[in-house]
Amino acid sequence: MDAAETIAERLNAGDRSALARMISWAENGDERFPAALAEIFPAVGRAWRVGITGPPGAGKSTLTNALTSLLRERDRTVGVLAVDPSSPFSGGALLGDRIRMEERTTDPGVYIRSMASRGSHGGLARAATDSCDVMDAFGFDRILVETVGVGQAEYEVVGATDTVVVVLCPGAGDSIQAMKAGLLEVADVLVVNKSDLPGADRLLMDLEEAVTTRTIRRDGTDAGWKVPVIPVCASNGDGVSDLTDAIAAHREHLSSADLDSIRRLKRVAQVRSVVGERLDEVLFGEGDWAAHVEARLAAESTPYDVAAAVVTSILAGDSAMSDALGDGNR
Amino acid sequence: MDAAETIAERLNAGDRSALARMISWAENGDERFPAALAEIFPAVGRAWRVGITGPPGAGKSTLTNALTSLLRERDRTVGVLAVDPSSPFSGGALLGDRIRMEERTTDPGVYIRSMASRGSHGGLARAATDSCDVMDAFGFDRILVETVGVGQAEYEVVGATDTVVVVLCPGAGDSIQAMKAGLLEVADVLVVNKSDLPGADRLLMDLEEAVTTRTIRRDGTDAGWKVPVIPVCASNGDGVSDLTDAIAAHREHLSSADLDSIRRLKRVAQVRSVVGERLDEVLFGEGDWAAHVEARLAAESTPYDVAAAVVTSILAGDSAMSDALGDGNR
Repeated sequence: MDAAETIAERLNAGDRSALARMISWAENGDERFPAALAEIFPAVGRAWRVGITGPPGAGKSTLTNALTSLLRERDRTVGVLAVDPSSPFSGGALLGDRIRMEERTTDPGVYIRSMASRGSHGGLARAATDSCDVMDAFGFDRILVETVGVGQAEYEVVGATDTVVVVLCPGAGDSIQAMKAGLLEVADVLVVNKSDLPGADRLLMDLEEAVTTRTIRRDGTDAGWKVPVIPVCASNGDGVSDLTDAIAAHREHLSSADLDSIRRLKRVAQVRSVVGERLDEVLFGEGDWAAHVEARLAAESTPYDVAAAVVTSILAGDSAMSDALGDGNR
Repeated sequence: MDAAETIAERLNAGDRSALARMISWAENGDERFPAALAEIFPAVGRAWRVGITGPPGAGKSTLTNALTSLLRERDRTVGVLAVDPSSPFSGGALLGDRIRMEERTTDPGVYIRSMASRGSHGGLARAATDSCDVMDAFGFDRILVETVGVGQAEYEVVGATDTVVVVLCPGAGDSIQAMKAGLLEVADVLVVNKSDLPGADRLLMDLEEAVTTRTIRRDGTDAGWKVPVIPVCASNGDGVSDLTDAIAAHREHLSSADLDSIRRLKRVAQVRSVVGERLDEVLFGEGDWAAHVEARLAAESTPYDVAAAVVTSILAGDSAMSDALGDGNR
């Protein structure tokens, strides 16, 4: 079993197998991860993180590939994290193309990694952010995080990146339209992919209008930023250069504002999420406290009464909870 | 401002405006909800809760309508909770048809309510379960909970019901296929809707095979239960009666097993979620603890180090956290 320090040291030395290992630790919530992260943390923060999201079928993978190629032409190294749809129960991913893409990669300036959507949603965002930190410390200039923009967990994943690119394409049905509303609000840059298809001009116009009238994001990070709408044809590369320009402009914008404090706010959210996971683990994952809760529920208490007793108990420092739950066994 | 006890009393007396009010409390996380729930909780548990989920465009709303009509013909009262896709940021719902359906309802034996997907995913499942509890206590025989089966939060919502009906239809694209894998695992009953369309027979056969070979669900509640695959044409009512038979058979199956303990396990999950929400609220929502975390992060600690300090501090009963965070201001 590798020690956290050994892996971190190898990662700092540029060992790609250490990179792969540490991302696996992040993905599986391995207990060695936090110590390894602490070792490499000083090197975290140099990469620019780009989230790429959109409805199924918008061509996100093709765009990610095209963007990667262009960035490589410009001598930027690129880490790609693809968060695929999968079962919340089996934890298995439906990778398909992605696996083929991983196999194809022989360029040492590119690293591609897939990650399954996990049962624990907080867990998915955490694992993705951790993986980005690892790729960042390894030294990649750009990190592309690709998700299917359909669920809350996926929004959280891209929300942790620096620039969020939302990819849409003409000809999608009404159900896709419904998803757009939420997607528009997370976008720093909008892409109309498959811009050669009928309806692309109309979609561009509609988006331009939506962007002009849209409300400011709650976190306020886009104050003064006008979301550009970029026509792209990812399959032949048209417009991809415009997209990199738009991403660069957004980076410029955030850097001239207070990038550090914006990133720190995202870190606070990460701490909240880790605190929540850990407390849940301690309270319900270990020992037989779930059984105590069950016993109390069987006695006709409402879930809120039981939860309130648990919370009171925790805040009073009674981590065994036995008094509050009226159970003398512990 | 209405007191919790007043609303609960009116709800117990059959007042529909009290029903609407209390569901709003559930949806908004109103502080009066827990006390009101405690008043009506003895009446909770009589309704049978059916989750209806599936990919966009599968015809879930049409099926919910058809099921409601049939149940009414059989003199069952029906509560419907529709969880619609919406923005995680604005919290606004895209209701459309649903609003029209609500307006149409004049039958006192039916109650239809829409709920927006909220920013907090745990919150969505909680609000949905709470709303079901309220409708249950009000006295509805059947509660139908309709969600779009695309995200983790939506899976959680249907996972809290007694019988999960997954609705698919022929002719959906590959991206939809991807969603199916996760959907199949949550299904107690599978419906092939639009069974008059080309490809329906093939889909039926594929699903029959998938159901025969699929792995048992992790929670073990389907031990001994063979998931039926029902062809339905919701728009003209064909097969809806078979669906009600399948739901009844699943109810029979669970009741002959240990329904109480199955339901109690779901309550334990609910308590976990409420505990998590409350702790997060207390720790980060009130006061300026987020600022302490931020200060610590600014001093180059990793998110895990800060989180560990917070957790240790909480479990030690130091709810002010100031010592652990090395801050003497509080």
